[in-house]
Amino acid sequence: MSTKVATTLNGVDLPRLTSTVEAVKGSPELGSFKFRISNRWVGGGENRSEVQPFTHAGKVIPHKTGFTLSADEPEVLLGADSGANPVEHLLHALASCVTTSMVYHAAARGMAIDQVESTLEGNLDLRGFLGLAPEIRNGYQGIRVTLRIKASLTDEQLQELSSLGPRFSPVYDSLVRGVPVEVVTERLT
Amino acid sequence: MSTKVATTLNGVDLPRLTSTVEAVKGSPELGSFKFRISNRWVGGGENRSEVQPFTHAGKVIPHKTGFTLSADEPEVLLGADSGANPVEHLLHALASCVTTSMVYHAAARGMAIDQVESTLEGNLDLRGFLGLAPEIRNGYQGIRVTLRIKASLTDEQLQELSSLGPRFSPVYDSLVRGVPVEVVTERLT
Repeated sequence: MSTKVATTLNGVDLPRLTSTVEAVKGSPELGSFKFRISNRWVGGGENRSEVQPFTHAGKVIPHKTGFTLSADEPEVLLGADSGANPVEHLLHALASCVTTSMVYHAAARGMAIDQVESTLEGNLDLRGFLGLAPEIRNGYQGIRVTLRIKASLTDEQLQELSSLGPRFSPVYDSLVRGVPVEVVTERLT
Repeated sequence: MSTKVATTLNGVDLPRLTSTVEAVKGSPELGSFKFRISNRWVGGGENRSEVQPFTHAGKVIPHKTGFTLSADEPEVLLGADSGANPVEHLLHALASCVTTSMVYHAAARGMAIDQVESTLEGNLDLRGFLGLAPEIRNGYQGIRVTLRIKASLTDEQLQELSSLGPRFSPVYDSLVRGVPVEVVTERLT
């Protein structure tokens, strides 16, 4: 007779999750990550990024395969509409991070999730970007995330579950609290 | 005899750029945009977004084609590494927006650009996400953008050109100054 022990929850490998947490607890330098992309302008509103190897605890780790991310603007914003635009990519970054953060932290708490969907919408006033009104910001004025979750949980547990994304998500934290961005320019010859 | 008038600069349609600015000046409601995505969890660290139609001045405008954006985590972060991760997508959103903002505003100023490349790197300490150290934030601690530009410009003009991205980019502004994010949860049945 053999017994089969469930080792994944929500698609997350629980023994590895536990060992990762313990490893970072014991060696804080294992928490250190540097993520990188490179971007190349194609023309007009079109450009493309290639995701680069990242650094973990001083070690450079390549991704298993290359990832190319394309951006363009819709016609009303003078582009060819060949890809999502930068502010739409920003919404994707937020959606994906809130979802993954919730899923991982739910796994760590033994909460099973059946399904997660979300819709995000962000309001922008182009007068900011165009420099037409100094009191109007260039960026999003606000973003609304609607999370829809299927799970065998009480209403109270569902609220706890849904709070995990905003509580732990790196992109949510970056966006809500802001991030220092340094820009350096070099001449291409 | 006919004369050919240059109507695009940096791939940007100058007459349309001018008419867009004039239209928004005259009718501020034309500045109003609402961008949307929907996201669906696949399992573990994997999820996918579909870019949705956006609203411009109250009118819903579909994109010319569908855009699917995929996210996953690398193996060291317990994923299958099938896509860029959320914080890498965030870097792409920033790179693409800084580039496009610079290109459009350069066109409006009559500054020709030959080439733009950029590399972005962001530092993250996983102890924030893991909840291991309250003093460490969950999000990026800082992002560094290196812009490399080819253009027939003096050093002073190159500096002016490179300042246009940070000065006008909606994603840069959203990230540096922060954005209010509202999260609403619903039960999927």
